[in-house]
Amino acid sequence: MNDKPIGIFDSGIGGLTVLKEIIHTLPHENTVYLGDTARVPYGIRSPETVIRYSYENTQFLFSQDIKLLVVACNTASSISLEAIKKRTGIPVIGVLEPGAQAAVAATKNKRVGIIGTEATIHSSSYTKAIQRIDDGIETYTKACPLFVPLVEEGWTDGPVARAIADTYLQDLLEKRIDTLVLGCTHYPLLKHVIADVTGEHMMLIDSAVETSFVVKKILQGTRLHREQKNAPERKFFVTDSPDRFLDVGERFLGQKITCIEKIMIGN
Amino acid sequence: MNDKPIGIFDSGIGGLTVLKEIIHTLPHENTVYLGDTARVPYGIRSPETVIRYSYENTQFLFSQDIKLLVVACNTASSISLEAIKKRTGIPVIGVLEPGAQAAVAATKNKRVGIIGTEATIHSSSYTKAIQRIDDGIETYTKACPLFVPLVEEGWTDGPVARAIADTYLQDLLEKRIDTLVLGCTHYPLLKHVIADVTGEHMMLIDSAVETSFVVKKILQGTRLHREQKNAPERKFFVTDSPDRFLDVGERFLGQKITCIEKIMIGN
Repeated sequence: MNDKPIGIFDSGIGGLTVLKEIIHTLPHENTVYLGDTARVPYGIRSPETVIRYSYENTQFLFSQDIKLLVVACNTASSISLEAIKKRTGIPVIGVLEPGAQAAVAATKNKRVGIIGTEATIHSSSYTKAIQRIDDGIETYTKACPLFVPLVEEGWTDGPVARAIADTYLQDLLEKRIDTLVLGCTHYPLLKHVIADVTGEHMMLIDSAVETSFVVKKILQGTRLHREQKNAPERKFFVTDSPDRFLDVGERFLGQKITCIEKIMIGN
Repeated sequence: MNDKPIGIFDSGIGGLTVLKEIIHTLPHENTVYLGDTARVPYGIRSPETVIRYSYENTQFLFSQDIKLLVVACNTASSISLEAIKKRTGIPVIGVLEPGAQAAVAATKNKRVGIIGTEATIHSSSYTKAIQRIDDGIETYTKACPLFVPLVEEGWTDGPVARAIADTYLQDLLEKRIDTLVLGCTHYPLLKHVIADVTGEHMMLIDSAVETSFVVKKILQGTRLHREQKNAPERKFFVTDSPDRFLDVGERFLGQKITCIEKIMIGN
């Protein structure tokens, strides 16, 4: 059982920032990553479509005999996590709750900003998750749809990134937030430019890091963690041609992707 | 037969710029527009996936009994037009050939720039189409993946649009092109900022306008054009929830969208 892999799915490439942190926190675990690159991005799709895609991705990862599922996509975590949990017998972890918990722990003035895709922001899921823990916290949100293509283009610093971050973050800064949740898996790659705009006093919450801590806690709590020292397996599956995933993905993951396969899901 | 609609498909919203020009050039024609919003964007997908999606879209529009098909998506026109033509008995028009012909007619120094999505640029389809007409023309290309989300965000002028256009177009300007093909249906909405960067001497080729002229010519040549003066029907179909399509689409089309329906295609 302990040798079974952790399954991770995302709408595409972004979840690799979550995988990167899981590898960092739990270096011995086997992992299977599914990037639904034929149907990316989820952030502009309707809830019923996101739920359907999430089911299909979960079903595929179950065929890989996983011991724990990480929904490494903020949009899917926001919209379909509860629906997935109802259908499975293994632990299911989204990126939303860990981020919300870290934000609650971090804020001193109880004013938290949240940035993400249109779908994540419209779902109000971060606000709900934060206020379930502490309903005295005020949240302020902003959808930042240009951040994802910006990161994928590789323009993570320079004048364009700065101009876009300035435009998106100005409203939130006026709300005197002291904590900002990076509510999309792509955003950790923009941490530097975001920090430049917000100033260094701002607490930036990276859901990928927080999620990896939760995964570790659950695996150790259920004694399902892998301790063997031989090299773990890292499998990657995509639903469109692997070329672009490899090009962009290795930058996200910070290491080479060797074992990758294209599969068909849902259509 | 003449009352049958013109069928138009696009990966999403962008093709509405083509529909807008068709309405302008041929105001009496009935039209059916399909936006494949559940699977947008095509520009980052592999050729085999784009071809499969294009077949499925064509099949749906055939069920609407169309008299002529416009593939109003540069990516699909680049990759799947020949494949679609082989399967149909009605005229099929892409946005690529009309744009290429206009560019060849416009350039004086025989140096033409082409901008588009990653898939359109990597396919080299504009270069091939231009050089089939005049192989003495040099082409210079640049993929501009941030332009589409920029337009959808509504930031079609201002400092962000200017910074992105500056960054993308600099290389092309150094090549001393005198003509620039806007090889993506979203780009006409950025015409002003692009013209600011290139200077007013540059000929900007808008494929949507050119395509509408070709549609008119074919319909009149085959005597299939509609002359009745009663108001034409405008039907819209989308593959994801219509909400976002309506929000953004009316800005693209420049008029209200009233008759819209969500359909399922391919999955």
